[in-house]
Amino acid sequence: MIIRPIKSEGLAHLSYLIGDGSKAAVIDPRRDCSCYLEMARAAGMEITHIFETHRNEDLISGAPILAGLTGARVLHGPNPARPVQYAQTARDGDCFAIGGDLTITAMETPGHTDDHLAYVIHDKGYPDGAVGVFTGDALFVGDVGRTDFYPERAEEVAGLLFDSLGKLLALGDQAIVYPAHGAGSVCGSGMASREFSTIGHERRNSPKLKITDRDAFIAAKLAETHYIPPYFATMERLNVEGADAMPRVTAPGVLNLADLDQLAPDWMIDIRSVTAFAGAHLPNALAIPVSMIPAFAGWFLDEDSRLILIADDMAQAQEAAVHLGRIGFDQILGTVTNMVGLAAKGRSFQSLPLVDAKTVSQRLDQRPEEWVLLDVRAQDEVEAEPMDGAEHIYIGHLRERFRSLDVTRHYTLMCASGARATVAAGWLQAHGFTKLDIFLGSMGAWKAFVAGSAS
Amino acid sequence: MIIRPIKSEGLAHLSYLIGDGSKAAVIDPRRDCSCYLEMARAAGMEITHIFETHRNEDLISGAPILAGLTGARVLHGPNPARPVQYAQTARDGDCFAIGGDLTITAMETPGHTDDHLAYVIHDKGYPDGAVGVFTGDALFVGDVGRTDFYPERAEEVAGLLFDSLGKLLALGDQAIVYPAHGAGSVCGSGMASREFSTIGHERRNSPKLKITDRDAFIAAKLAETHYIPPYFATMERLNVEGADAMPRVTAPGVLNLADLDQLAPDWMIDIRSVTAFAGAHLPNALAIPVSMIPAFAGWFLDEDSRLILIADDMAQAQEAAVHLGRIGFDQILGTVTNMVGLAAKGRSFQSLPLVDAKTVSQRLDQRPEEWVLLDVRAQDEVEAEPMDGAEHIYIGHLRERFRSLDVTRHYTLMCASGARATVAAGWLQAHGFTKLDIFLGSMGAWKAFVAGSAS
Amino acid sequence: MIIRPIKSEGLAHLSYLIGDGSKAAVIDPRRDCSCYLEMARAAGMEITHIFETHRNEDLISGAPILAGLTGARVLHGPNPARPVQYAQTARDGDCFAIGGDLTITAMETPGHTDDHLAYVIHDKGYPDGAVGVFTGDALFVGDVGRTDFYPERAEEVAGLLFDSLGKLLALGDQAIVYPAHGAGSVCGSGMASREFSTIGHERRNSPKLKITDRDAFIAAKLAETHYIPPYFATMERLNVEGADAMPRVTAPGVLNLADLDQLAPDWMIDIRSVTAFAGAHLPNALAIPVSMIPAFAGWFLDEDSRLILIADDMAQAQEAAVHLGRIGFDQILGTVTNMVGLAAKGRSFQSLPLVDAKTVSQRLDQRPEEWVLLDVRAQDEVEAEPMDGAEHIYIGHLRERFRSLDVTRHYTLMCASGARATVAAGWLQAHGFTKLDIFLGSMGAWKAFVAGSAS
Amino acid sequence: MIIRPIKSEGLAHLSYLIGDGSKAAVIDPRRDCSCYLEMARAAGMEITHIFETHRNEDLISGAPILAGLTGARVLHGPNPARPVQYAQTARDGDCFAIGGDLTITAMETPGHTDDHLAYVIHDKGYPDGAVGVFTGDALFVGDVGRTDFYPERAEEVAGLLFDSLGKLLALGDQAIVYPAHGAGSVCGSGMASREFSTIGHERRNSPKLKITDRDAFIAAKLAETHYIPPYFATMERLNVEGADAMPRVTAPGVLNLADLDQLAPDWMIDIRSVTAFAGAHLPNALAIPVSMIPAFAGWFLDEDSRLILIADDMAQAQEAAVHLGRIGFDQILGTVTNMVGLAAKGRSFQSLPLVDAKTVSQRLDQRPEEWVLLDVRAQDEVEAEPMDGAEHIYIGHLRERFRSLDVTRHYTLMCASGARATVAAGWLQAHGFTKLDIFLGSMGAWKAFVAGSAS
Repeated sequence: MIIRPIKSEGLAHLSYLIGDGSKAAVIDPRRDCSCYLEMARAAGMEITHIFETHRNEDLISGAPILAGLTGARVLHGPNPARPVQYAQTARDGDCFAIGGDLTITAMETPGHTDDHLAYVIHDKGYPDGAVGVFTGDALFVGDVGRTDFYPERAEEVAGLLFDSLGKLLALGDQAIVYPAHGAGSVCGSGMASREFSTIGHERRNSPKLKITDRDAFIAAKLAETHYIPPYFATMERLNVEGADAMPRVTAPGVLNLADLDQLAPDWMIDIRSVTAFAGAHLPNALAIPVSMIPAFAGWFLDEDSRLILIADDMAQAQEAAVHLGRIGFDQILGTVTNMVGLAAKGRSFQSLPLVDAKTVSQRLDQRPEEWVLLDVRAQDEVEAEPMDGAEHIYIGHLRERFRSLDVTRHYTLMCASGARATVAAGWLQAHGFTKLDIFLGSMGAWKAFVAGSAS
Repeated sequence: MIIRPIKSEGLAHLSYLIGDGSKAAVIDPRRDCSCYLEMARAAGMEITHIFETHRNEDLISGAPILAGLTGARVLHGPNPARPVQYAQTARDGDCFAIGGDLTITAMETPGHTDDHLAYVIHDKGYPDGAVGVFTGDALFVGDVGRTDFYPERAEEVAGLLFDSLGKLLALGDQAIVYPAHGAGSVCGSGMASREFSTIGHERRNSPKLKITDRDAFIAAKLAETHYIPPYFATMERLNVEGADAMPRVTAPGVLNLADLDQLAPDWMIDIRSVTAFAGAHLPNALAIPVSMIPAFAGWFLDEDSRLILIADDMAQAQEAAVHLGRIGFDQILGTVTNMVGLAAKGRSFQSLPLVDAKTVSQRLDQRPEEWVLLDVRAQDEVEAEPMDGAEHIYIGHLRERFRSLDVTRHYTLMCASGARATVAAGWLQAHGFTKLDIFLGSMGAWKAFVAGSAS
Repeated sequence: MIIRPIKSEGLAHLSYLIGDGSKAAVIDPRRDCSCYLEMARAAGMEITHIFETHRNEDLISGAPILAGLTGARVLHGPNPARPVQYAQTARDGDCFAIGGDLTITAMETPGHTDDHLAYVIHDKGYPDGAVGVFTGDALFVGDVGRTDFYPERAEEVAGLLFDSLGKLLALGDQAIVYPAHGAGSVCGSGMASREFSTIGHERRNSPKLKITDRDAFIAAKLAETHYIPPYFATMERLNVEGADAMPRVTAPGVLNLADLDQLAPDWMIDIRSVTAFAGAHLPNALAIPVSMIPAFAGWFLDEDSRLILIADDMAQAQEAAVHLGRIGFDQILGTVTNMVGLAAKGRSFQSLPLVDAKTVSQRLDQRPEEWVLLDVRAQDEVEAEPMDGAEHIYIGHLRERFRSLDVTRHYTLMCASGARATVAAGWLQAHGFTKLDIFLGSMGAWKAFVAGSAS
Repeated sequence: MIIRPIKSEGLAHLSYLIGDGSKAAVIDPRRDCSCYLEMARAAGMEITHIFETHRNEDLISGAPILAGLTGARVLHGPNPARPVQYAQTARDGDCFAIGGDLTITAMETPGHTDDHLAYVIHDKGYPDGAVGVFTGDALFVGDVGRTDFYPERAEEVAGLLFDSLGKLLALGDQAIVYPAHGAGSVCGSGMASREFSTIGHERRNSPKLKITDRDAFIAAKLAETHYIPPYFATMERLNVEGADAMPRVTAPGVLNLADLDQLAPDWMIDIRSVTAFAGAHLPNALAIPVSMIPAFAGWFLDEDSRLILIADDMAQAQEAAVHLGRIGFDQILGTVTNMVGLAAKGRSFQSLPLVDAKTVSQRLDQRPEEWVLLDVRAQDEVEAEPMDGAEHIYIGHLRERFRSLDVTRHYTLMCASGARATVAAGWLQAHGFTKLDIFLGSMGAWKAFVAGSAS
């Protein structure tokens, strides 16, 4: 019996191939799903079942695509908001034999979503107790799933999750936990960086699991702040209807200067690093460094946005295209990979100054009238470590709220490190703000500066 | 925190890279050990510690080599038969910080060997109870370590292992088990094919762990049969002194017909499949199909044997060279990869007939005087499923016992499937036996034949 | 400017990616054509043109598929037997700019086919004379194209090729030759193993190019023997209509014993080595070792044959599936990869004895009445090195001529080495012949034997 | 017969593996030379000869290392300045058989260096004329070798090269040219971007080869400007004595903030892009973007400089380490890969403003007193396209001439695109200059600006 996690970086999404050596199942496959079939066949296994723990809201499910490649059955939980068109319904206790030794049993675990299932792993040769459990978005290492998707039923679904976690704990301390997300996901805020744990270790250590009172748990969940980026709606639709496969070749086409002028994209996305964007970028380009695409592209782009990527090199552009494809942004017109070369052909460029803690400190002291320190961190970060003197707009809300800002003022953008601040600055610059700079190091640098000044 | 198992197929050896994202440790590295450093650095981690669970007897330790590449400390348990020259001694309770979040604590667990340590994993951020434990050769998934290495102290060391397992069980059900071997290893006979488990699941399911009486456990261990191939002695010496690194290029050189005649190897090893060897092979070549090298080459070759490999292709020859290098056979003079081409250049060849169950049944009925059905399975296989009418010599004992056989008689070799039978037949043919055939399918085919005849 | 040959082994087919750093063209792409686009984009180039030198008869063109992936224009020569539906027509002298520096000029070079074009490479910055030329199937290194595809116009087309070669020679000695096939292709019989040459070196060394008299050239071409396997008809149809893309995952599915019994394939193809097949194989399996698939599968299989592959391992099965897919055999039901394991589950098997030159010599001396030495080499091999005492049927003709053989007689199969003899023996065994053996080493071993006996 | 070019990007160095299918030779191997052996063995060939065209001055020869791995003979030309200790001497006409079909014949071709040999390729089966020739640094595609290494014998060696080129031309138009460098090398200034050509095409197109008068040729060579970076002296010594092998693992170790402070490197090298460096970098770091390392690191670093790399990611750091290793800079203490993260830990940073053509134009118009436009292009670029109003110091000379600059003035750095200008600005900033900016786009942008202003 083998189990292989397949991680999608950025989304921190974990899918799994599990099999007994002859037959195999895939749990929560992603859109670029040939890899599961290749891994299974290389190991001499046929994929017979595809299990979805819930209708994913943050990425495109590869289940219908992989089913098309393999003929495998797709199983999904009951009670989805809309029926999943490519799946059969699995219910609590339904047991699926994967080859001769392995069984997978569905366990209804609503709360994160109404249709949520965990899948319990048993080994027929060693049958006393579960070997492990695919916990989907109900239980993560160090955290539990978010329960903010039904705002009108907030208390109810938090309670449902409490009950579901009880069912998971009842599997016994020995059961290994295989969650659908690892650290960095937007599907939970307190995940451990560790991706291996057991029911027993979580029971003893996970902060939310230590809350044994149902009402206290509900209260704790209701006190959380989560954000819902607009692209989630697209994911939900596609994961009901079934999305198309990824392109066979994911590397974007290469554009020259003439292409760049003619193609009229909705957005040029500059996927280079924060400092590279700050140094020089094309006018009107948005900054979304490649590793930030999974978490932030969905806040700023529309489903059908026609995009050009500004990249350091083709490998980076290809990685970006894969990230974008996994969350449904397929309209990539091409890429340019040589910022210096563009300048040397006479293309104009812009910069964004990077400022340090000392500069910010001086400005805070002097309080120039037109100056604003704008903090784009999430609400819980701001509450945990407030930045005195800063205004706050969450980066994801900038698209709808930037018009409330005064284009004539001077904004210094900050976040925890300067990365999200750069994305924000890029957005503002592309919308007519001209007096912008970025606090590089941001809250981290500020704390070091304060500590240094104090000592 | 990440953990990556690195498996050496054939030996079924499991080593591990574990780290917190900045610093990392390696547990029981193999000889070809650049992979650990490459993986660590690709993940942005520096290897600071190398832990040996015990002095490996079945493969060359890469610990001194990896220490040379990294500057990391090597830790080894107390009480080795001879002091490990490249290691410092870790004792029960010694705790090693790996970066900021991860600690590894030594736990003395003698029994398999006197110097055996388990290493317990704790996550500082989630400190209640061990996350997991590297169990070395003390505890496997589905089995416990063998205790036959000190025959004069058999009861004592079996008892020591019982006590050590008690210490491991006391870590709690939640602890994940990371053993040094998976299914197929000669270091235990009943391992599960599954390579993931926990203390809790083992406690409830592993046959030997269910024996809660110390004397009963000792009795059960003493009733086991294990074999000690002669190359173990070389491994023990090298793993005290520290072996050399593998060659930079492991692919063997390609030989032509003239080379083949001039090089005078001690052995030509035919690493192709069972049926390919049976079809045609060079006179005096030994059959050791590539996947069988780790388990069986050490029975037939001497430490300094000069070898030529007969392969299907270069990829197969390279795989064989890696297998051989991991167990200390470095004198590979080269390879030839075209059996048909050799024949077409006039090279003579031999075959070995493959016979089926029906033929064996007829012979067993007729009992021709000079005919012997020779079973080369291990003792416990023979006891579990005896083959009436067969003589028995374990394949590993053939080298020292074949002279007791009658070279004028007709031997049909058998095992469980025909694979070891082919190795045995090749050995006998190379030593002057001329009336040989191989029971393809062997015990498996025989059971199907008997069942078919009965129905 | 870069040029990259992409070789399809077995078919010995050469296709090319050529570009100036920004734009690129592909010459004669194969069916599995994502590789061209990936290479081009990794090098920062866009594919704008796809050039076919002629309607390939021995493999599926990837031109329409690659056009679908890229939007590139497909160019094909005039006068095809049927209009190529996915291509535009290029005529003598048509010049195509590929980016800024590179031009490709069509040169009508009929003879091998009526629609044959060569494509001449010029570098704008170094314009005096062609840099090189894609010669398609008109000119190879060491040989010229075959001219047997229009038997009723044999003299005419041989003469056309003579004239076309004259046009190629007129490009000047400096032009590098980039042919569509290398050594081992069935599209020419005398190719050099070298894959790099120039017009000048070919002019001075290629046997057929040294014939400067047109009539003598025609006579030499008419004296050649070539074979046309039946699958060529399928290729011709697909390369007019445009074939489908290869499957996304080419590794075949893994079958178990039950699958094997239920699937009822048209053929089981044993793709393992000659000696492995001879040692043991499933009854009714055909022997087509994986490297021989491109040259020989098309003689024995029908376009819609439903196939199961018997392989050493999954890598070999995947390689076979790619070979089969390139020549249009897509109905691969799955693969089994463990011949010994099948036997150990009670599956019956067959063998084919391999005999050596001494045995054949003795039989030739004794001339047993029912014995036939059957030579399956090509006509030109037989003429060059006749085997006294043998009957001759070309391996490719066995399918239609085997019924003329006497199933009660004993056949020893031979060829040059024993490889094709094994394919032939497998075919005969699957069609009821029971007294068969294979002369391993065949003509090569025979010559060595005769030389050894003489000395 | 196969030939495989192995290109070292950046150095634009071309080495070759050539073989007949059984034996092989390597021409001008680089230091990281396992790849040749792996390629040869994968193709079933043994490397028997290693040929050096001359004592390389711009990179470390892998010949002695590869000889150690293979036992192959190393051949080098006569008349080296100092005897090459690991090589035997080959002289004009010495012919070496590589397997059965291939011969390599030495041809003395002094001029670039006194010991320079070309190696002529013949195919025994097609013997009329050379198939090709390894031209080393005597003849490139589009250019001929530089002849400035013996300044006191400038006319003599230019004449020697003229004579050597005559010998090469005499091989005939059909011979394929395989040079030791492609476009981008510092070993010639006018190379074509194309890497495939023939004697005939060069004869007809290469500017220097069109000069048929010996004196005119000498005059043309003497008019060239070349630079000799100081690391060449190290290369020359190592390529006489024989350098050590590369480390087995080339990825540098990862450093944390504490390491960074303690290690006290001679230089931090920021290998990120031009714009990333300009945006923010660590104080005192030098900018040498990874792709510029081969050409420029050798101007600024000393043989034993202890280095820390500032990189975007580990892949980039590893690439840099390979580049540095090929030219002898092995003292890489480690790398840091997160500039934003360093800032977020309170690390201070610097920026360098990027200015555009309009800004430069305004300054040129206004001529502020303390302002200098400093052009760091090579002499021939300056002569071909002078920038009015700029001072000129070649970037390679900055290390020895920067002290002549006035640290109180404001310097705007320029080159052709802004890349070398950034290297120069980084150097000056690390040496106390504080009023610096970089003309991004530089001469390219300037020409576009002037054209735009004029129109």
